[in-house]
Amino acid sequence: MYYGAIEAGGTKFVCAVSRDGAGIEARTSIPTTTPGETLKHVFAFFDSYPLISMGIGSFGPIDVNTDSDTYGYITSTPKPGWGYFDFLGEIKDRYNVPTAWTTDVNAAAYGEFREGGARSSGSCVYLTVGTGIGGGAVVDGKVLEGFGHPEMGHILVRRHPEDEYGGNCPYHADCLEGMAAGPAIEKRHGQTGDMLAADDKVWEIEAYYLAQALVQYTLILRPEVFILGGGVMKQTQLFPLIRQEYQRLLNSYVDTPDIETMITSPAIGDDAAVTGCLLLAAEVKA
Amino acid sequence: MYYGAIEAGGTKFVCAVSRDGAGIEARTSIPTTTPGETLKHVFAFFDSYPLISMGIGSFGPIDVNTDSDTYGYITSTPKPGWGYFDFLGEIKDRYNVPTAWTTDVNAAAYGEFREGGARSSGSCVYLTVGTGIGGGAVVDGKVLEGFGHPEMGHILVRRHPEDEYGGNCPYHADCLEGMAAGPAIEKRHGQTGDMLAADDKVWEIEAYYLAQALVQYTLILRPEVFILGGGVMKQTQLFPLIRQEYQRLLNSYVDTPDIETMITSPAIGDDAAVTGCLLLAAEVKA
Repeated sequence: MYYGAIEAGGTKFVCAVSRDGAGIEARTSIPTTTPGETLKHVFAFFDSYPLISMGIGSFGPIDVNTDSDTYGYITSTPKPGWGYFDFLGEIKDRYNVPTAWTTDVNAAAYGEFREGGARSSGSCVYLTVGTGIGGGAVVDGKVLEGFGHPEMGHILVRRHPEDEYGGNCPYHADCLEGMAAGPAIEKRHGQTGDMLAADDKVWEIEAYYLAQALVQYTLILRPEVFILGGGVMKQTQLFPLIRQEYQRLLNSYVDTPDIETMITSPAIGDDAAVTGCLLLAAEVKA
Repeated sequence: MYYGAIEAGGTKFVCAVSRDGAGIEARTSIPTTTPGETLKHVFAFFDSYPLISMGIGSFGPIDVNTDSDTYGYITSTPKPGWGYFDFLGEIKDRYNVPTAWTTDVNAAAYGEFREGGARSSGSCVYLTVGTGIGGGAVVDGKVLEGFGHPEMGHILVRRHPEDEYGGNCPYHADCLEGMAAGPAIEKRHGQTGDMLAADDKVWEIEAYYLAQALVQYTLILRPEVFILGGGVMKQTQLFPLIRQEYQRLLNSYVDTPDIETMITSPAIGDDAAVTGCLLLAAEVKA
């Protein structure tokens, strides 16, 4: 009998199975096209494994409110075909097993918390900085949700004094995602981040925004570890810049763990979310 | 046998006892002077009740990290005599009962969550806006703590375009507390808030900062209810201004409960923290 995991991303789905909830025994990667086509391949993978339970970490926004009529749906995504898609319902119809359901970033936070860079800590935030910015958190051993799931990428930021870029978030213009996700870097500078020199001023501006976000998360949540992943964070020169700006802004107002280990890269890399999904599957109650 | 509660504030301590953990059967209020003198009166009150356990909600910053050498201390407060005072140790030495230990604002959040304005909700944030700004939260039925307790009053805010006040936080200058606590209102306008007209521009600026804070808490925590207390919030004209600015900033990006009931005053008023302390006392494990 197997635990199943689906990391449902905007560009690809990763499906995996495990007998013990930790080691991945088989996996497949499926491009995210239409719900019908993508799920056809998802079903083809899982149909050959007898399942105990499933853990799903999905791109969002999703409905995680169990009292809601649209619980288990991907909700107001602009992604064609996926708006108000009953993702969890489709999975339950097919497999009729207990299912854990959260965001892809919460699943990644949980994977890093249990098996990765935050495994000896009591709490963590996982932030992915790529095409968009999304954050998940583990507090008191559980993924953080309230009336809905966090949307940490859309917090408000103070503008860098030398930054005249207007921001590209369709909801908030110059929120964190609007100012610091990959497309904002490209639109501000006319080229993608990976074409810019490691000592370009752009990274100082980028660190200014990301450090502000970490300060806000610190003052509100007090996580022990920040794990920063996603395409933009492949620019590893950002880490020391973020740590420096974080310390400047926080100004020793609250205690933190050692800054070098507190603000860090994913330890289980691209497997964080799928690992988190397997662990959540292994813990889900019927 | 009684549950004991201490709401330890910067100006006064409120002590109370209850046999069932809910109804307050006796209470006293003690001015906060020196630790020795204040505790003498605290002991005089509790010594006449046989105690099962104690719940303490203290002004901060305090050390809530059970792995720390200074767990149970009030730490880096500027309040004379109270810096690095072993508050929990003194109480345990005297009564030798199991003790719950958190911040005054976390205790107030818990009181409102269990018995007040958030009692039919799954999560809440309690924010007090007075001489300072402090916030506590209940997530998944428990008070929110991580590596330490939240310091929600010190989050960064964007400056109101018409506000030239520099802010008075000694750590961050123009953070939320530096721009929106009572002393900031007084210093900016030359008179205390209660002397200003209800339709003064000051309240629009105040609401601008507080609404930003609620937006950040929403995107990070997704609480179902915000309870806003403290002296500044006695200016009830702030509530509609905050709700309006909150909706403008959030721009319907995430679902929220009904705005009128979501952003509200304390339902159990000045008893929120002491009620929370009693409830925490009734739940504490030996």
